[in-house]
Amino acid sequence: MRADVLLTNATVATMEPGGSPYGLMTGTTIGITGDKITYLGPPVSGITGDAVRDVGDHLITPALIDCHTHAIFGGDRIAEFEARLGGSSYEELAATGGGILSTVQATRNTPDDELVRHAAGRLGWLLRSGVGTVEVKSGYGLDPHHELRMLRVARLLGRQGPQRVVTSLLAAHTIPPEHDGLADQYVTSICEQIIPAAVAEGLADCVDGFCETVAFSADQIARVFDAAAEAGLSVRLHADQLTDSGGAALAARYGALSADHLEHASVSGLEKMATAGTVAVLIPGASVFLNEPTIPNIPAMRLAGVSIAVSTDLNPGTSPVGSLQVAMWLATSRFRLTPEESLAGTTRHAAKALGLSDTGIVRVGMRADLALWRTSEPAALSYWTGAPLCKAVWVAGTLVFEAGSDD
Amino acid sequence: MRADVLLTNATVATMEPGGSPYGLMTGTTIGITGDKITYLGPPVSGITGDAVRDVGDHLITPALIDCHTHAIFGGDRIAEFEARLGGSSYEELAATGGGILSTVQATRNTPDDELVRHAAGRLGWLLRSGVGTVEVKSGYGLDPHHELRMLRVARLLGRQGPQRVVTSLLAAHTIPPEHDGLADQYVTSICEQIIPAAVAEGLADCVDGFCETVAFSADQIARVFDAAAEAGLSVRLHADQLTDSGGAALAARYGALSADHLEHASVSGLEKMATAGTVAVLIPGASVFLNEPTIPNIPAMRLAGVSIAVSTDLNPGTSPVGSLQVAMWLATSRFRLTPEESLAGTTRHAAKALGLSDTGIVRVGMRADLALWRTSEPAALSYWTGAPLCKAVWVAGTLVFEAGSDD
Repeated sequence: MRADVLLTNATVATMEPGGSPYGLMTGTTIGITGDKITYLGPPVSGITGDAVRDVGDHLITPALIDCHTHAIFGGDRIAEFEARLGGSSYEELAATGGGILSTVQATRNTPDDELVRHAAGRLGWLLRSGVGTVEVKSGYGLDPHHELRMLRVARLLGRQGPQRVVTSLLAAHTIPPEHDGLADQYVTSICEQIIPAAVAEGLADCVDGFCETVAFSADQIARVFDAAAEAGLSVRLHADQLTDSGGAALAARYGALSADHLEHASVSGLEKMATAGTVAVLIPGASVFLNEPTIPNIPAMRLAGVSIAVSTDLNPGTSPVGSLQVAMWLATSRFRLTPEESLAGTTRHAAKALGLSDTGIVRVGMRADLALWRTSEPAALSYWTGAPLCKAVWVAGTLVFEAGSDD
Repeated sequence: MRADVLLTNATVATMEPGGSPYGLMTGTTIGITGDKITYLGPPVSGITGDAVRDVGDHLITPALIDCHTHAIFGGDRIAEFEARLGGSSYEELAATGGGILSTVQATRNTPDDELVRHAAGRLGWLLRSGVGTVEVKSGYGLDPHHELRMLRVARLLGRQGPQRVVTSLLAAHTIPPEHDGLADQYVTSICEQIIPAAVAEGLADCVDGFCETVAFSADQIARVFDAAAEAGLSVRLHADQLTDSGGAALAARYGALSADHLEHASVSGLEKMATAGTVAVLIPGASVFLNEPTIPNIPAMRLAGVSIAVSTDLNPGTSPVGSLQVAMWLATSRFRLTPEESLAGTTRHAAKALGLSDTGIVRVGMRADLALWRTSEPAALSYWTGAPLCKAVWVAGTLVFEAGSDD
């Protein structure tokens, strides 16, 4: 057999479930043909490649998957960050135009090309931490025009690459100023206008919502999810971040791909998620950035058998985190995941959170989404932070990132 | 006047104390001649440079200073990290050869050239986060031969560059196996053998110690500091990290340059530090990595008027942090420093912690140690984490790091 590319002498964390830790293989050859992995196993003389790269025992993992980002936005919230640490209260910040609505205003006022350029820069940061697939949400438009515009920008980012982009329609992120005090009216607009329009243009892979006392109620989210189901879209949810709003159970009831944050989720909600196959997406960056004292109940997730993913939540207000590896470090140090859970959370389980079955595991027949690291130890990816460990990334068989020799 | 290099159109966070926040100047020209800053001010026609670089409003700060690292070591502690998160107790880890003594063993067994190569790689990581000056400690040798060997490696790193390296003799890091139960005997060896030998070879800029129930008592550290004073060396201290051992007051009593960690320092100890001019070096990476519930008493430090520095503590056991910017993010998010305190902590105050008066501020006559960033907002350096914001670094007037255009 012949492959386009052969990677030889690799230590591979395949992340195959159920086997040895990390699904680890050593002295391994990976064959890539087209966009697929076509060989995985010991070196055999019958295989040749047009390009052969001896990776010298270095670690290959699935390219990482960042399954929760708000990477498209206008402006930033640096002044708000500085004012908050200087002692301003949330009320003062809101009065001076801070908070999520300031990002909505800035995003609406930013032209498409500028949104694309800045978001592409941020996806480039993530790429340097090994990320080959990125989920990107709308949610700073909050009206039919601007929500669809954000999703078009996300689709453009996916077309121009280098990464694969999965889109989530997050019109139900917060209540826009035009509907202040009229959340139900805005929910009607989401259900009757925004979701159908997004579907008609093929812009949304999924529908997301924010269930919280400061955002939408469980009943309102249920309406959005019903509309999503009618449109044939899967759903996911920002759930139980600041309070127990019953978000975990709600997500499970709708068979959501994921419920994200979950700092205050109840044990029964987590159990329902396990039964429904809903992935718990943990976001340690937001937890630390907001200095939240409560962390998610990981032992209960383990006990219930919930799949756990880890993401950056890259966004300007609550998680200015530009590296999935930093999120992995925080997930282990602060949330006490094991390094293996942390890596499963950014590969196999992150793929599940996005409803993707063709990536997140190094396996013959899967997409050749791979990351090569300057270490042979899978745990090193959660141990070092701020170190440029990622050496190269392949997306669908194409080498899309290669670190400089002195990186 | 003529300069070797002119940087024009800069937003400069000079970090001059006492003036506007960050000592901010805009539309500024910086002239560099030899290793010094020779001009700082508005563009004027009378100045020309052999090389002129328009930095397009981007931010220039002093090159950052990482004033507390253990960047030279053999081996790593990844297996211990993984075992700890997998549920092993400290006792189990110690029984299987984990802990600081495993790094001592590995360091003793690692040849010089390998120590140099690995440490140079880690200093390269720090460089990418804007670091132009690094303090490096011994402390994994713990006998005359290996402590001096570590300091020679540190001196070599400084000679080969690109960064300036300041060395601290940390023989009083922990009790070596040869002196188990005989700490006083080892302290005698430090005072009578190791310090004099290091001084004779000019290897140590400073003497450091670890005052803690698990390391050396205040009385033992006092003996080390007396020997340092006799040898004409300034001192600093790992103080009050795990318990209140009176470390802050001890450091102040000896006029130490810095007392580091300080999670459990008493208010009276902090007040004594302020009076003595001893800098508080905060290490949020170790706090988060060890999941410590107690953070340093920053309000008391502010009230007392203690200068605050921030560092990575880069080391394999308690702070595998390879970016000073990650430490700045943790210092603001977790320790609630303001972004201005965070940047002062890695520039002006970090210089003070190292006894350096020629760097850490952008000022005419200072060394041309500068960092250029992909932002014009000084607070951005503590706001984003994991984003490659550093565009270029100059050390003593020489451009030593330049990020790729797509970085």
